[in-house]
Amino acid sequence: MKPSIDLRSDTVTQPSTAMRQFMAQAEVGDAVIDVDPTTDRLERLTAEMLGKEAALFMPSGSMTNQIAIRLHCQPGDEFLCEENCHVYNYEQAAFAQLSGVVARTLPGIHGVLSPDQFAGTIRPINDHLVRTRLVCLENTHNRGSGKVQPFENVQQITSWARENGLATHLDGARLFNAAVATGISVAQWSEMFDTVSVCFSKGLGAPVGSALAGPAEFIQKAKRARKLFGGGMRQSGIIAAGALFALQNNVSRLTEDHEKAAKLADAIRETDGLTLEVDPIDTNIVIFSIAPELGTAAQWQQSLAQRGVAVLATAPQKIRLVTHLDVSMSQVEAAVEVIKTISPAMA
Amino acid sequence: MKPSIDLRSDTVTQPSTAMRQFMAQAEVGDAVIDVDPTTDRLERLTAEMLGKEAALFMPSGSMTNQIAIRLHCQPGDEFLCEENCHVYNYEQAAFAQLSGVVARTLPGIHGVLSPDQFAGTIRPINDHLVRTRLVCLENTHNRGSGKVQPFENVQQITSWARENGLATHLDGARLFNAAVATGISVAQWSEMFDTVSVCFSKGLGAPVGSALAGPAEFIQKAKRARKLFGGGMRQSGIIAAGALFALQNNVSRLTEDHEKAAKLADAIRETDGLTLEVDPIDTNIVIFSIAPELGTAAQWQQSLAQRGVAVLATAPQKIRLVTHLDVSMSQVEAAVEVIKTISPAMA
Amino acid sequence: MKPSIDLRSDTVTQPSTAMRQFMAQAEVGDAVIDVDPTTDRLERLTAEMLGKEAALFMPSGSMTNQIAIRLHCQPGDEFLCEENCHVYNYEQAAFAQLSGVVARTLPGIHGVLSPDQFAGTIRPINDHLVRTRLVCLENTHNRGSGKVQPFENVQQITSWARENGLATHLDGARLFNAAVATGISVAQWSEMFDTVSVCFSKGLGAPVGSALAGPAEFIQKAKRARKLFGGGMRQSGIIAAGALFALQNNVSRLTEDHEKAAKLADAIRETDGLTLEVDPIDTNIVIFSIAPELGTAAQWQQSLAQRGVAVLATAPQKIRLVTHLDVSMSQVEAAVEVIKTISPAMA
Amino acid sequence: MKPSIDLRSDTVTQPSTAMRQFMAQAEVGDAVIDVDPTTDRLERLTAEMLGKEAALFMPSGSMTNQIAIRLHCQPGDEFLCEENCHVYNYEQAAFAQLSGVVARTLPGIHGVLSPDQFAGTIRPINDHLVRTRLVCLENTHNRGSGKVQPFENVQQITSWARENGLATHLDGARLFNAAVATGISVAQWSEMFDTVSVCFSKGLGAPVGSALAGPAEFIQKAKRARKLFGGGMRQSGIIAAGALFALQNNVSRLTEDHEKAAKLADAIRETDGLTLEVDPIDTNIVIFSIAPELGTAAQWQQSLAQRGVAVLATAPQKIRLVTHLDVSMSQVEAAVEVIKTISPAMA
Repeated sequence: MKPSIDLRSDTVTQPSTAMRQFMAQAEVGDAVIDVDPTTDRLERLTAEMLGKEAALFMPSGSMTNQIAIRLHCQPGDEFLCEENCHVYNYEQAAFAQLSGVVARTLPGIHGVLSPDQFAGTIRPINDHLVRTRLVCLENTHNRGSGKVQPFENVQQITSWARENGLATHLDGARLFNAAVATGISVAQWSEMFDTVSVCFSKGLGAPVGSALAGPAEFIQKAKRARKLFGGGMRQSGIIAAGALFALQNNVSRLTEDHEKAAKLADAIRETDGLTLEVDPIDTNIVIFSIAPELGTAAQWQQSLAQRGVAVLATAPQKIRLVTHLDVSMSQVEAAVEVIKTISPAMA
Repeated sequence: MKPSIDLRSDTVTQPSTAMRQFMAQAEVGDAVIDVDPTTDRLERLTAEMLGKEAALFMPSGSMTNQIAIRLHCQPGDEFLCEENCHVYNYEQAAFAQLSGVVARTLPGIHGVLSPDQFAGTIRPINDHLVRTRLVCLENTHNRGSGKVQPFENVQQITSWARENGLATHLDGARLFNAAVATGISVAQWSEMFDTVSVCFSKGLGAPVGSALAGPAEFIQKAKRARKLFGGGMRQSGIIAAGALFALQNNVSRLTEDHEKAAKLADAIRETDGLTLEVDPIDTNIVIFSIAPELGTAAQWQQSLAQRGVAVLATAPQKIRLVTHLDVSMSQVEAAVEVIKTISPAMA
Repeated sequence: MKPSIDLRSDTVTQPSTAMRQFMAQAEVGDAVIDVDPTTDRLERLTAEMLGKEAALFMPSGSMTNQIAIRLHCQPGDEFLCEENCHVYNYEQAAFAQLSGVVARTLPGIHGVLSPDQFAGTIRPINDHLVRTRLVCLENTHNRGSGKVQPFENVQQITSWARENGLATHLDGARLFNAAVATGISVAQWSEMFDTVSVCFSKGLGAPVGSALAGPAEFIQKAKRARKLFGGGMRQSGIIAAGALFALQNNVSRLTEDHEKAAKLADAIRETDGLTLEVDPIDTNIVIFSIAPELGTAAQWQQSLAQRGVAVLATAPQKIRLVTHLDVSMSQVEAAVEVIKTISPAMA
Repeated sequence: MKPSIDLRSDTVTQPSTAMRQFMAQAEVGDAVIDVDPTTDRLERLTAEMLGKEAALFMPSGSMTNQIAIRLHCQPGDEFLCEENCHVYNYEQAAFAQLSGVVARTLPGIHGVLSPDQFAGTIRPINDHLVRTRLVCLENTHNRGSGKVQPFENVQQITSWARENGLATHLDGARLFNAAVATGISVAQWSEMFDTVSVCFSKGLGAPVGSALAGPAEFIQKAKRARKLFGGGMRQSGIIAAGALFALQNNVSRLTEDHEKAAKLADAIRETDGLTLEVDPIDTNIVIFSIAPELGTAAQWQQSLAQRGVAVLATAPQKIRLVTHLDVSMSQVEAAVEVIKTISPAMA
């Protein structure tokens, strides 16, 4: 039996009936030869919300991020990023594989870099050396337990980048979570970056898709790169409609996901042998470690699944829980009970 | 006003109401973490129809083709193809840009290569030389006016490839057209190749998507490459449903498109100053050239558009017409009248 | 026993005693940290002779050519070249493997393209298409039997390129042969191109090395690319001295090699069953085919070797002979006798 | 005036008269068509000394290292290395630019990694992740002040790698320094690695060249890759002779360089305001920092140069001194005097 409370990721959400209807009725066109009107609406709305000139719809967040890096950098250029970030770790290093770009990683605390860590990171002009070109940040930070980047840090880091002629890209797969958690709008976050990618198929609940936003000229080039990567889709309006519906309906409700995550965090905090990776929780991701005497993460994952709660073991002693629109508060409360029950049993 | 009879491409088709309903009701899952059941059904059906062990859904035909080439070849390998084919000309040479692979083109007649053209094309083992690894064919051939590759040619070429240790890939974007035109099944065509790509968003009328089929192990690697290219999609079942509907409902009706194209070809043949590029027409693509005294292709494109018929100028004196499920026979007859009327006027 | 008359290639030449002494006494420095004075002299002299702002010494002609292509083009750009040329066929397609660049080949006659073959070869601006950026020519043409490109053709082709915003590169591995054969100076040939590579280890008789010449800014970038490719050498003056000696002493004597080749060509022409690939011979390369009744090229290669004449079978029925400074006229006369003697014996 | 005591690098050494004579008399051949006998001798001797099946001569250490990485890894593979090592920092990231490979850096102490830092660094099999394939170490470590890697560390790290199916490569540009400093032979060091690169143009005093050693099959592939990178040289015996002479004559004398470096280190240690980066010094590289009140490294570099001592400022407050066969002990003593004199003057 499939666990009924799925806390593995906010990517598992199913399109709602309303979203499905919206998609079924979407006006479409051939996005390659002409313009797909629904995709066009989505792109305009995204650009507007992020305060950018233009945006481009793509099938995945990996594509938006890796195309951004490819366009900011040339082969033999280097970008600076936090060592646990998604673009370096979870996108098969497409930046190197496909684009000949190299990453220089800086160690963060829960995904957060302090501005002074960037001092001395720009390589001098020298034929032995790559050229430093780009800073990539991730907000919220997935492996950092959904941590929101401190706004001041981001200001200082991106200012430093600009002063030093570096481009800046924000992997904003969960930027809407950062916005509702802080009250700082996505536009305010985005303003500090040259380009921003956002994802519609995580907390926002759309089935598929991501967008890259930035200057019009950059997005024009991104369209060409999207074709190169095989991301050009014909009547893309069908899925763009899901994203459009998500943008129009599912943003402010992310606060509920954060409340649910806080509830889960409370339970973890109160359970002996379980330790929150980050405390307090900023958004919708809860990572905790398990004392060895309580078993391994794999054992917990299995036991929880048997009791109807699906979670993800992300390390030998670590579990990740993610809340989203397909898990209600009462389901979260049920999951809390399961965790509390299971804990003594594992000892 | 948008021309009402759109003969520019078979990619412009709109999903029908039935297809939209089918998509709206599709059962979906997270295709990255779990399995998306509708995508899975589509992939199984595609594999079965093509007689291959497995298939993989991707957002575009460029992605399926370029991933096939990437996996058959390593950097510094070479593939043999016809000089006007799609993978060499219309996919931004991703094989070189992203995969370090080189193309060796052979001149065909309307996209058709004869088996003896392959003699002597395999490079000897030598450190100066690339390694010849793959033969790519395209069937039907887009720039060859929708020409079906002669079955015997394909047999001989692929046998030769196998005997010489070369892999074979078929760009079957319009393979279903070849099948209904010849009565030779897609499985029979596919049997001769290691891998085959097919497209759902052309004559089959689905909004988005393509599939790559081949040995299970190859498709496993293709899944990894799809992630690399950014083609991993979460609840892809929504659009896979469109493709599934198309496979189940829109294959045999392609004969109608061929009849419509034949009707258009008749009109071209009978018009002074217009010459069919290929005659007779095999499938749903009609390319004709215009005698200079009748004006340029650009002028024709404009005049036809003013009379409600959209076509594509593919060269200074050449026009392409493509029939599909969103152009009825009576619309084709109307288009024929427009062509006949316009012709004397252009002189 | 090693054959005493080596006609396989002009790359086999040994440095003379005088050249060896010149190398042994070369003033050197660390070319990476400082300047190597002998390398510097060579580069200045090369640039001056070719009429270019600057030149750069590299270990091989493959490196100079492939770095030129890499710098003229970006990933996804295309260059136009003759289908049998060296940069496309004999350099492991480094342009694709290392630089993501694609080649478009045009069929020449003995390596010679006519200007009108370039009409329509520039791709329109379109996201499906690569960008046409560069024309590469080869002079003299190795596989074209040492053919000198007709000066007028080169003028027209390079003018057309310039008018259309394309860059031009000359693979001048044997440009000095073209110059002494025509009386048109290497500077006059080079003037028509943005960049030119020349080779010191072929007819000029130096042990190692090639140079790339062009605008100072371009050569600055080439220095960076040379480092990337691993071609940065410390006290390179030792081998640069060989090249410098060659430039100062071995250019005008190339006419002797051409006379020797003409003598060989006369013998081939007069022998039944042997046919010159190109007649008359322009420079120092003679390619001839063997009538099947006289045996295969492999058999000829072996028989000639047994009689002290080393040659290269370049195809099942083709032999290449190359004259150079380590084969004297009397040795060529001896080789002629061997060929004439062997011919009836092979029947 | 050029400073007469050059401590900037051990790459600045000039070939001695005896080495020059040896090079001038080298027996050579066409290394591409045939075998160059002197290059062959060098490669055999290198392989023998390193206890490997085969070795290959190349123009630079960057080429040997980057080709080793390219052959151990495929695009999308990852190698583990110390964050200040040469292959990651000083070779223009050719691994990413040319080979699509990604680096994962671990922070060392003076270039030394402890075996337990490798725990957990191998990525699981997962389509999001690159594949971990290779460990690269550098011995001695250039930026680590010529530090010799602790033998036991290397044993443990390479054993761990082997047990986990990872390949191992040693950047042994200064491996001979490590050998004479420890009494552990280069063969013993090399035995722990699959492949090893050594450099002839550093402490060994040859003008040009490096070699890559390893299994015969690997070296065969390296020869092909060398051609690709443009490192194929014809009569390479001339420069290979310099390397051969260096191997035969200049290895054991490296101890003198280490004594000279120790003398310099003593002077630094005794000078107020100067601090050795690593103390004691293992080999021939001395790095020290300058207290801010004594001025900047740039000022010191200039002052020392004016007094005939050339050094390299490697950071705002850091100076590097390297001893080699072109700086005698009495010159080192003179340099010590200059440093002692200058120090109070800078305050």
